[in-house]
Amino acid sequence: MKHYLHINNVENLQKTVEEAIELKKNELEFSELGKGKTICLLFFNNSLRTRLSTQKAAQNLGLNVVVMNFGSEGWQLEYEDGVVMNQDKAEHIKEAAKVIAQYCDIVAIRAFASLTDKEKDRAEIVLESFKKLAGIPVVNMESATGHPMQALADAITMEEYKVAEKPKVVLSWAPHPRALPHAVANSFVEMMQLQNADFVITHPEGYELDEEITKNSKIEYNQKKAFENADFVYVKNWSSFKNYGKVDNTDENWMINGDKMAVTNSAKFMHCLPVRRNVVVADEVIDSENSVVIEQANNRTYSAQIVLKRILEDM
Amino acid sequence: MKHYLHINNVENLQKTVEEAIELKKNELEFSELGKGKTICLLFFNNSLRTRLSTQKAAQNLGLNVVVMNFGSEGWQLEYEDGVVMNQDKAEHIKEAAKVIAQYCDIVAIRAFASLTDKEKDRAEIVLESFKKLAGIPVVNMESATGHPMQALADAITMEEYKVAEKPKVVLSWAPHPRALPHAVANSFVEMMQLQNADFVITHPEGYELDEEITKNSKIEYNQKKAFENADFVYVKNWSSFKNYGKVDNTDENWMINGDKMAVTNSAKFMHCLPVRRNVVVADEVIDSENSVVIEQANNRTYSAQIVLKRILEDM
Amino acid sequence: MKHYLHINNVENLQKTVEEAIELKKNELEFSELGKGKTICLLFFNNSLRTRLSTQKAAQNLGLNVVVMNFGSEGWQLEYEDGVVMNQDKAEHIKEAAKVIAQYCDIVAIRAFASLTDKEKDRAEIVLESFKKLAGIPVVNMESATGHPMQALADAITMEEYKVAEKPKVVLSWAPHPRALPHAVANSFVEMMQLQNADFVITHPEGYELDEEITKNSKIEYNQKKAFENADFVYVKNWSSFKNYGKVDNTDENWMINGDKMAVTNSAKFMHCLPVRRNVVVADEVIDSENSVVIEQANNRTYSAQIVLKRILEDM
Repeated sequence: MKHYLHINNVENLQKTVEEAIELKKNELEFSELGKGKTICLLFFNNSLRTRLSTQKAAQNLGLNVVVMNFGSEGWQLEYEDGVVMNQDKAEHIKEAAKVIAQYCDIVAIRAFASLTDKEKDRAEIVLESFKKLAGIPVVNMESATGHPMQALADAITMEEYKVAEKPKVVLSWAPHPRALPHAVANSFVEMMQLQNADFVITHPEGYELDEEITKNSKIEYNQKKAFENADFVYVKNWSSFKNYGKVDNTDENWMINGDKMAVTNSAKFMHCLPVRRNVVVADEVIDSENSVVIEQANNRTYSAQIVLKRILEDM
Repeated sequence: MKHYLHINNVENLQKTVEEAIELKKNELEFSELGKGKTICLLFFNNSLRTRLSTQKAAQNLGLNVVVMNFGSEGWQLEYEDGVVMNQDKAEHIKEAAKVIAQYCDIVAIRAFASLTDKEKDRAEIVLESFKKLAGIPVVNMESATGHPMQALADAITMEEYKVAEKPKVVLSWAPHPRALPHAVANSFVEMMQLQNADFVITHPEGYELDEEITKNSKIEYNQKKAFENADFVYVKNWSSFKNYGKVDNTDENWMINGDKMAVTNSAKFMHCLPVRRNVVVADEVIDSENSVVIEQANNRTYSAQIVLKRILEDM
Repeated sequence: MKHYLHINNVENLQKTVEEAIELKKNELEFSELGKGKTICLLFFNNSLRTRLSTQKAAQNLGLNVVVMNFGSEGWQLEYEDGVVMNQDKAEHIKEAAKVIAQYCDIVAIRAFASLTDKEKDRAEIVLESFKKLAGIPVVNMESATGHPMQALADAITMEEYKVAEKPKVVLSWAPHPRALPHAVANSFVEMMQLQNADFVITHPEGYELDEEITKNSKIEYNQKKAFENADFVYVKNWSSFKNYGKVDNTDENWMINGDKMAVTNSAKFMHCLPVRRNVVVADEVIDSENSVVIEQANNRTYSAQIVLKRILEDM
């Protein structure tokens, strides 16, 4: 693997998931693989799971880890060509990306959507700039439009908990007070399109994700109907894509509760976290024995580790 | 040792102090003990000594260290049960603690007192939540009501400098412009209650510490009388406990100066640092040869190291 | 080498540069040299290149690295003697420096100029306090008046790219919207004074650097004349030294463009970065094949590594 920017950068998803599960059993098996090499984790946004799990994964592989919070420890970058840089941006990505690349062997980046400029967000300017300029492997730790490290952890988790060869999987929107990005939902959809599953997306009308991503994935506007006989219920809020970045709907009736889970096939409850209890999901669901959110978060270490392992092997 | 939340988690204080002093002579002796294991240091408050000494101690034991500043790098956590999380808190401790625990083998936490809600502070909600939920060893790097890592460093320092079998030790309040927590004073008192010493606490009337902690420890309101023939003078400001978190008294006459030290038995001057010179203590005292504040800070490495060593040995 | 505070702390610049170039070919050759030792990187100001390259260099030498951002993770320090510390400074440098020194073997510090108090800045109070008090090697990661790690990287870069035994080297001021310190320019001048070169400084009248530093270095106020037949053009903005810290001049005509470079001897374009494109330098110059800014930044790793190697060897 050269870069890990998109779930499609994984050549064989099923095989990768199985290898990650093997790795989990003996996480220090390849602790010499990264020796003498350095990974830089660049955070343009806050993070908990990604910050800790990626460091853990990198250290399990023997990599040196350098963490930088661009906002508080660095300065603003310019991404446009030809600009007269006399405002608040102190450095151009052309220099920053090339320079950073010289101090490390792999660079992992978190750079959220603006949620104000759809086309800019879709252009994935931060990630694509590093990919174009850095000349070293670039890893997506959640970008404007995708979170493939989460999607891979989700695939690992579903492999561990699935009871049917072709499970029914529902991605459900849920309400949230703030405008959240589409990245997690997008990557989950893209990952599901690679799986042998009966996959349904449910959300209020008007909350359609980017059609270029959802393609022919089935959409069911009736949440309860979508949940019927589901084996996995994956919940996530996102802001409107059509009315870009806006919170048009906070309908409490879309919160996941026990009544809704009751019509499923004892579905596993999944969420990428952090989650707002009793807004996105009722305590009774997230605290139930069918909730696998903690195990899902744990698999973030192994999705990062299998990705970094593949990258190291191909260097 | 399972957790280190309180000085009483040390089984045999005297033996532990002696072992720490041995460790200090050859701090890399157990550099293989933590190999392949990770400690997460979670800071909900700023830190200098604790930040650096705990990292040093962990690295001396071969541990991987991951540092996270929750305020600037993460988000606010909810600690109450059953809350509808539609305000400013993005994640519940129930998820955060369990998730973090999966990425490390030991978690060390700094979470100061609010100084606004006495009962909440006494409940030690951050530390106790991690203890209850994380399922891995939890280490106190200063909590709402205690700083046992400091108290253990203090015990090491007193062992190194004591000239009598049963020294006279004075804990003296001193003035300070800001409201400070009780944690250091509390843990010092609790540690002294385990020692063979003539122990006296001195402070202005109304500045009594929590009686459940001071118990039968002697209180002498006349500071100079308390200092007579002292072998160790341990100085610390704290805000009012009765009038919780308030600064009722900034009486400059309580500052430690040479005249006061003159009535001691050439007492060693101790303070946990940071200290405000010429407010808490006069230059003439902290710069004197009887001041052991630097050595005391140095022992923070060895109190952390002996605690982490015990925890690693019992894993 | 005991400390690295000034380019003059390098005993033999030419030999050091050659050794750094050797080190670059096999950067892990001395990866055991720092084993069991710790370097603390203290940042009183933001950083990208210095932060990453110094960590890389230290890890290449096997050192443990601890990073602390004093502003966001610590508190303000007092540097004056005898002060009654009842204002906003929580700790005196006398304690901080001695304490930090006990937790590490080398301390590296970034502490920029205030640009408001010339005498205080020239006194280099942060660096000198650590040098005086810490008792361990102190490394300058850019101070009020110097950036010798950058100057050493510049010397390495010029050695790699020089085509003449005695090249013509121009240090040119360029416009910038904000008030910038003199540190980089100062150390470059001091480094050039140790070189066999035809060295010229060019800047608008009134923008003279500290005469105690420039000494007899040639100043040419006509920028284009200065550029004639130059082999290296080193560009940097600085605020006024005379009218201390003020931006008296933002004359766009001083920006480096292709016309100016055309009169040079195909000069290499150098800048320490970050650089504002089309303010300090036109795209056509920084994007040309004569621009060596990326290679120059890369050499920051090797200037740091040769300095740390020398310090470790002399411990």
